[in-house]
Amino acid sequence: MSTLAASVTEICAAARAAGRALAQVDAGTKDRALAAVAEALVERTPEILEANARDLEAGRADDLGAALLDRLALDEGRVAAIGAGVRAVAALPDPVGEVVDGRRLPNGLSLRRIRVPLGVVAVVYEARPNVTVDAAALAVKSGNAIVLRGSRSAAQSNAVLTRIVAEAATGAGLPARAVSLVAGGGREELADLATQDRFVDLIIPRGGEGLKAALSAVATVPVIYAASGNCHVYVDASADPDSAERIVVNAKVQRPGVCNAAETLLVHRDAAPDVLPRVLGALRERGVQLRVDGRAKAAAGEALAGTLLDATEEDWDTEYLALVLAVRVVDSVQEAVEHVNAHGSGHSEAILTEDLAAARAFQLGVDAACVYVNASTRFTDGFEFGMGAEIGNSTQKLHARGPIGLRELCTYKYLVEGDGTARG
Amino acid sequence: MSTLAASVTEICAAARAAGRALAQVDAGTKDRALAAVAEALVERTPEILEANARDLEAGRADDLGAALLDRLALDEGRVAAIGAGVRAVAALPDPVGEVVDGRRLPNGLSLRRIRVPLGVVAVVYEARPNVTVDAAALAVKSGNAIVLRGSRSAAQSNAVLTRIVAEAATGAGLPARAVSLVAGGGREELADLATQDRFVDLIIPRGGEGLKAALSAVATVPVIYAASGNCHVYVDASADPDSAERIVVNAKVQRPGVCNAAETLLVHRDAAPDVLPRVLGALRERGVQLRVDGRAKAAAGEALAGTLLDATEEDWDTEYLALVLAVRVVDSVQEAVEHVNAHGSGHSEAILTEDLAAARAFQLGVDAACVYVNASTRFTDGFEFGMGAEIGNSTQKLHARGPIGLRELCTYKYLVEGDGTARG
Repeated sequence: MSTLAASVTEICAAARAAGRALAQVDAGTKDRALAAVAEALVERTPEILEANARDLEAGRADDLGAALLDRLALDEGRVAAIGAGVRAVAALPDPVGEVVDGRRLPNGLSLRRIRVPLGVVAVVYEARPNVTVDAAALAVKSGNAIVLRGSRSAAQSNAVLTRIVAEAATGAGLPARAVSLVAGGGREELADLATQDRFVDLIIPRGGEGLKAALSAVATVPVIYAASGNCHVYVDASADPDSAERIVVNAKVQRPGVCNAAETLLVHRDAAPDVLPRVLGALRERGVQLRVDGRAKAAAGEALAGTLLDATEEDWDTEYLALVLAVRVVDSVQEAVEHVNAHGSGHSEAILTEDLAAARAFQLGVDAACVYVNASTRFTDGFEFGMGAEIGNSTQKLHARGPIGLRELCTYKYLVEGDGTARG
Repeated sequence: MSTLAASVTEICAAARAAGRALAQVDAGTKDRALAAVAEALVERTPEILEANARDLEAGRADDLGAALLDRLALDEGRVAAIGAGVRAVAALPDPVGEVVDGRRLPNGLSLRRIRVPLGVVAVVYEARPNVTVDAAALAVKSGNAIVLRGSRSAAQSNAVLTRIVAEAATGAGLPARAVSLVAGGGREELADLATQDRFVDLIIPRGGEGLKAALSAVATVPVIYAASGNCHVYVDASADPDSAERIVVNAKVQRPGVCNAAETLLVHRDAAPDVLPRVLGALRERGVQLRVDGRAKAAAGEALAGTLLDATEEDWDTEYLALVLAVRVVDSVQEAVEHVNAHGSGHSEAILTEDLAAARAFQLGVDAACVYVNASTRFTDGFEFGMGAEIGNSTQKLHARGPIGLRELCTYKYLVEGDGTARG
């Protein structure tokens, strides 16, 4: 169980010991513990809502905006949903012990590479208290101890949620202190946590560029940034216009505040006269602000001309996370690939085309975690990809790229068995 | 081709562009280019030996020791062996494009996860000039551009080798500047290289703790340390004494200067009276200095008593890389696991036992890249493991653990194909 008064180092050292024990716990015990956690969350809902009410009160006194207060707020339904999420994680296959590959070596040694937990994972996150439980469930399932560091605004809710999770898990036979919360949301605690490389194997920050900058300046623990997405949809010369309209609107409008939403539309010059008037018209109808280059403006037609803004170089590099879209006409799929590789963040990129050669050139050429053909960028997500859940989405290339699920919270080790075998 | 006068940034930016092109080159072209490299190395041997002679002359003038001079020296046989190594890498399967896994999602999307090159890899290494070619061949085969940074003492040899590799590769159709050398072996160039995160995806340092410390202080590029090994052999109560003698001697003596050699021997108290006199005697015959705890001294017997030194706490944490071995008696396999996890570096650990439960407890409990049962720690190696080659050996848990071969020089991307699919 977390001790709020404990130092960050003491918490992380205890997590290291708990992680060593948890790595050896069988899947049945872990799943029963997660079921107990889900049950405890529902049973102790009044306790959770009371702590949450104190956070909300403090938030209103601090003039938190309505959107932040909504993200912070829990009610019976939301707590029940958090519990259901824990049960869903318990139902996933255990990644630990999975044999990744193996062979018999010429000298007779048997070699197996098996998935094992990383050890201790730290997750740094902002307002939403549900992350406390979601992240803890993924960590427990993957055999990792977890150190949580939430925001100051959710301190009471996170403390109660962590206590309930830790008590239920320990009660069901998991090692004590496998789930802990670092109290205090300040930069000092963050720096303290990010330098515990003796005890912590990985930090996953879930937050904006400010958090990323604060961490990269100090971290000695390896970090995987659940990072921003400057995603593109490229409409090729041969794209089906109906499909293009549906997918571009989906990629921009369905949920504009998330990292897999599209931020720039690229259109082949041959498709522009047909596609741009209807696609841009459909976007304008849904309130999207359009920042277009000269050729896109020319192709958009008279009806829209008054509503279009001129794009600047900066627009190609901006993740709006809002109902804003940059639009550019390109001469070829190669130019689209170059634009994406120059300005994209390596998250999710889509080509819409009927032409196999163009699809192949785009998929081969684009350097990103997820490359789509005739589908919306919005599908990049651990649930959608069949991984069951995710703790974030990586745009890094090392270790985990794309959704970070249970397997990505593991490393591997080689088990090698001989018969008194020495090297010649 | 590398331009010695170019700045580190300019070299890395050119490597990024070359890497983007190289990622799309088919396996046949890459293999033909590697064959051309092997041929050019043999053909241009006189040029290589002339440059090497200048390095050796400078080394003698700088009073380099005999061992360092030997590591630096090339002759016709060594150059031929380097060429043969390049052909061996060419003969390995291409990791690029390999489908790691995939599935059809409930919404009809087809999802494939495929292996793709990281992009640009930097390798920082010390005296041996053969690393220049070995590392370049592994990079080319895995579709990565490479930036090499060798030591000042091998500057002339490395420059000629890099030029030959780059010219042959470009002549055979690979992108220009896929293989480059950073001139100058100073700390400034190292810091310059380690902060090129826009252009370099990974740095692999091959060298001692000094190099590691110099890098971790400044690097913003992700680093995988080809790190030290404080490896243990644990002789369980039930171990076969013949086998124990053979494996302990092999693990310590066969090649004491490498990272997978054993540095500490742990012996179960019940095995100590039988095993220690003969094993320690065999080690003493081979000139191994023994640093033992009190119980090991007592069990070793009269004949050896005068030759044993007392181990201190520091010995448990020391990687000798020499004919020195620390020896300790433990009460159980659990105590052995705890000792290994407290003092080991997570490289290679072995248990010698006839007891299945002990083997299982050790393999489950030890947190290391490679855990052996009844075999020598000396097998940890990309060639031995059937990976064909390695660029180093990682004791980190993220991305690559154990031997770093062709697959470990890759990342992956998800390719997702739909039919006009939007997210509901």
